[in-house]
Amino acid sequence: MKRFLDLADLQREEVQELLDLARRLEAHPEPQALAGKILGMVFFNPSLRTLASFQAGMAKLGGTSFVITPGQGTWQLETRLGAVMNGAAAEHVREGIPVLASYCDALGIRAFADGKDLRYDLAETAFNAMAAVVDKPLVNLESAVNHPCQALADWKTMDDLGVPRNAKFVLSWVWHPRALPLAVPAATTHMAAMRGMEVVVLRPEGFALPPQIMEKARAAAALSGGSVRETSDRREALEGAQVLYAKEWGSTTYYGDAAADGELRARLTDWCVRNDWFAHAALDCRLMHCLPVRRNTAVADEVLDGPRSVVQREAYNRLTVQMAVLYKLLKGI
Amino acid sequence: MKRFLDLADLQREEVQELLDLARRLEAHPEPQALAGKILGMVFFNPSLRTLASFQAGMAKLGGTSFVITPGQGTWQLETRLGAVMNGAAAEHVREGIPVLASYCDALGIRAFADGKDLRYDLAETAFNAMAAVVDKPLVNLESAVNHPCQALADWKTMDDLGVPRNAKFVLSWVWHPRALPLAVPAATTHMAAMRGMEVVVLRPEGFALPPQIMEKARAAAALSGGSVRETSDRREALEGAQVLYAKEWGSTTYYGDAAADGELRARLTDWCVRNDWFAHAALDCRLMHCLPVRRNTAVADEVLDGPRSVVQREAYNRLTVQMAVLYKLLKGI
Amino acid sequence: MKRFLDLADLQREEVQELLDLARRLEAHPEPQALAGKILGMVFFNPSLRTLASFQAGMAKLGGTSFVITPGQGTWQLETRLGAVMNGAAAEHVREGIPVLASYCDALGIRAFADGKDLRYDLAETAFNAMAAVVDKPLVNLESAVNHPCQALADWKTMDDLGVPRNAKFVLSWVWHPRALPLAVPAATTHMAAMRGMEVVVLRPEGFALPPQIMEKARAAAALSGGSVRETSDRREALEGAQVLYAKEWGSTTYYGDAAADGELRARLTDWCVRNDWFAHAALDCRLMHCLPVRRNTAVADEVLDGPRSVVQREAYNRLTVQMAVLYKLLKGI
Repeated sequence: MKRFLDLADLQREEVQELLDLARRLEAHPEPQALAGKILGMVFFNPSLRTLASFQAGMAKLGGTSFVITPGQGTWQLETRLGAVMNGAAAEHVREGIPVLASYCDALGIRAFADGKDLRYDLAETAFNAMAAVVDKPLVNLESAVNHPCQALADWKTMDDLGVPRNAKFVLSWVWHPRALPLAVPAATTHMAAMRGMEVVVLRPEGFALPPQIMEKARAAAALSGGSVRETSDRREALEGAQVLYAKEWGSTTYYGDAAADGELRARLTDWCVRNDWFAHAALDCRLMHCLPVRRNTAVADEVLDGPRSVVQREAYNRLTVQMAVLYKLLKGI
Repeated sequence: MKRFLDLADLQREEVQELLDLARRLEAHPEPQALAGKILGMVFFNPSLRTLASFQAGMAKLGGTSFVITPGQGTWQLETRLGAVMNGAAAEHVREGIPVLASYCDALGIRAFADGKDLRYDLAETAFNAMAAVVDKPLVNLESAVNHPCQALADWKTMDDLGVPRNAKFVLSWVWHPRALPLAVPAATTHMAAMRGMEVVVLRPEGFALPPQIMEKARAAAALSGGSVRETSDRREALEGAQVLYAKEWGSTTYYGDAAADGELRARLTDWCVRNDWFAHAALDCRLMHCLPVRRNTAVADEVLDGPRSVVQREAYNRLTVQMAVLYKLLKGI
Repeated sequence: MKRFLDLADLQREEVQELLDLARRLEAHPEPQALAGKILGMVFFNPSLRTLASFQAGMAKLGGTSFVITPGQGTWQLETRLGAVMNGAAAEHVREGIPVLASYCDALGIRAFADGKDLRYDLAETAFNAMAAVVDKPLVNLESAVNHPCQALADWKTMDDLGVPRNAKFVLSWVWHPRALPLAVPAATTHMAAMRGMEVVVLRPEGFALPPQIMEKARAAAALSGGSVRETSDRREALEGAQVLYAKEWGSTTYYGDAAADGELRARLTDWCVRNDWFAHAALDCRLMHCLPVRRNTAVADEVLDGPRSVVQREAYNRLTVQMAVLYKLLKGI
């Protein structure tokens, strides 16, 4: 494996191999597997799980890592091609990124959506501008519309818990004070579809996932025997659900328009997952969330502190699956 | 040892064991003792010594570490139970802290006093909310009213220098432009009492240590044969002192009231330790300070650059004692 | 070697030894050479290459490192001797720096020019105040008027590319929105002179390098058989040049006067290196730059993306030469 940028770049069998490797390394640690190997990570945006779990994962395999956070101890980096750099950014990614790649054996990059122009973000313009100048193994630590590490961790979490491949999986929009990126909803919908699940995207009007994201997920479902549909009817969506995956994202109707988005979401504060959401779900329906989650606005204490919540296991699995990804990337297998 | 949160959790014999282990590791390094072990650290507040010495200590024992600084490369974390999270904090410690604990073999947390409500701070409300959700070995990297790593380092420093167990130990308030937390004064007073010393807390009116802190120290003194009292009479306090421990803290009479505290301290700028403070002290009386120290406002150059100052040795002993703490926590002994 | 602070502290033979060692470690890695060794780094200013390459270099030699960034997760440090510290800085470098040195086997410090008083900066007042209290091997990670790691990397880059020792080397001022420090122009001019090159400093009026810097370079040239002169005539300077080293710096005529400097540079936006600058240069004339570089204001895309640019190799050689420096410092050879 040369790059880990998108679960859609892999066949289902390859995902299965990664998950098998993750389980093998959990059961039989290999503390010297990556001895002498260095992971470089560039964070254009904040991180907690990714930052900690990749460093821990490298350490558990005997390797090391370094972290660069542009704008914080490092100057800002420009991503636009052809830019006349007379503003705040002191360096272009066309210099900075290959330089960092030359210091390490694999590079990880986090670059959230710009949040202004949907087409720009859907095309992964910023991330791809950087990926194009990296000749080392590369990991997507979350880009404008993707988060493959989270998707793989969530897949393993459902496997760990025995959630059937064809179970009903509901991705539900939940409230947040601001518009958040589409990376996790897009990656989650695709992952669940690729896993063969009956995927329902539950969201209020104005928050439909863009057609490109839905089509990509449907293409994965067609190969796996799953399905993907969307609705704004909460009752119908959650009927018989075995997984409720809560996630916040911004209005796609008013993408990049904070005022219009804000007006829309001001009427949606009841989109906070409470115990009564599960009234017609499967008895053992799980609550998933990629974290960070805002308590009592996105998901209530009663749910996060109750038996349905598997968010800790999801977060822990970031470590286990990323170790498998690093292993394959850095062993060149 | 499962946790290192408060020197008061240990018997004197256990403190002695830690100090013996620290000395043994100084004399006979064990560069592979913690091979494969990972320390995670969360800093809600700035750090220099703690940040550097814990990383160095893990490395010297063959382990590794990662650092998370909420609000700086990581979003802010909410600590209040039941909070409706529609403000700045994107994640609650009830998620974030156990997630980080799941990535490492031991976790360290720094969370200074809130500085508004004395009862809230004395109860270690914020730190305890986090400690409650950690199931890995845990280290207090300084909490609202405690700093056990500093206290242990100071104990060892006095042992190193041959300061008698029953020597006169004066903790003196010194000037600072702002109200600082009670963590070090509280931990220091308790440590010196537990060591068996004749402890005098020297402070101006308005800065008496809270009764809970004095009582805890007196309880330790009762077991060790030491004593604890307080005064605002500098001459009398320093008479025959063998240690002058300088420290800044906020008014306890006006806790959380910056204006009243400021008015009070504006008249106290002569509380800057100068050579003449030692006129009636023991000839070899030492100047201790946990650092950071402001020169020529808290302690004068003439003292810090003179022969009495042992602040460098105190700081160096942060490394030696913390290596012992890490060794015991991570070896599970 | 005890310290690596200035290329001028070394004989040419010692530079040659360092470069030979760098090449040897490139060809024959020694992944355990610095096992158990710890590098501490203090960054008073932002960094990308230095931060990443020193961490990577230590890791490639089996050692570890920690990073302190005053003002960012660590309080600000005061550098002025005798300061009455009632302002923003919470700690003096006279405490902070030796403390950090006591936690590691070698210390690196980055402290840019203050940019107000040329004499203060030329005397390396701030860096020297810190160096004076460090008793461990010390590395200059860029000071007010020096950057020996960059200079050594550039020397190796020219060796790697077969640039003759006596080739014509033009350091040219280029445009930047703000006044930048003299560290790289000073170090580069001296390095090229010490290498034996025909050095021409090309700069507009108001940006002449200070006499002390020119004299130091000329002294090196006298020993190496090189030469150093300056001009503002671009055509004449670049005639037959084999290296064009582009660099931004502030007005020396109006040092510390942002308004006067700004007025001067506002008329100099044509000092952006384009392909036509090379019209009369040697056919294979290289474009060098220490990075970060602003595209299309300091150097045009057409040059940075064209075959003349060797900036990536310069940056990569930061890693190779610094590994040699660390090896010598930490092996004590």
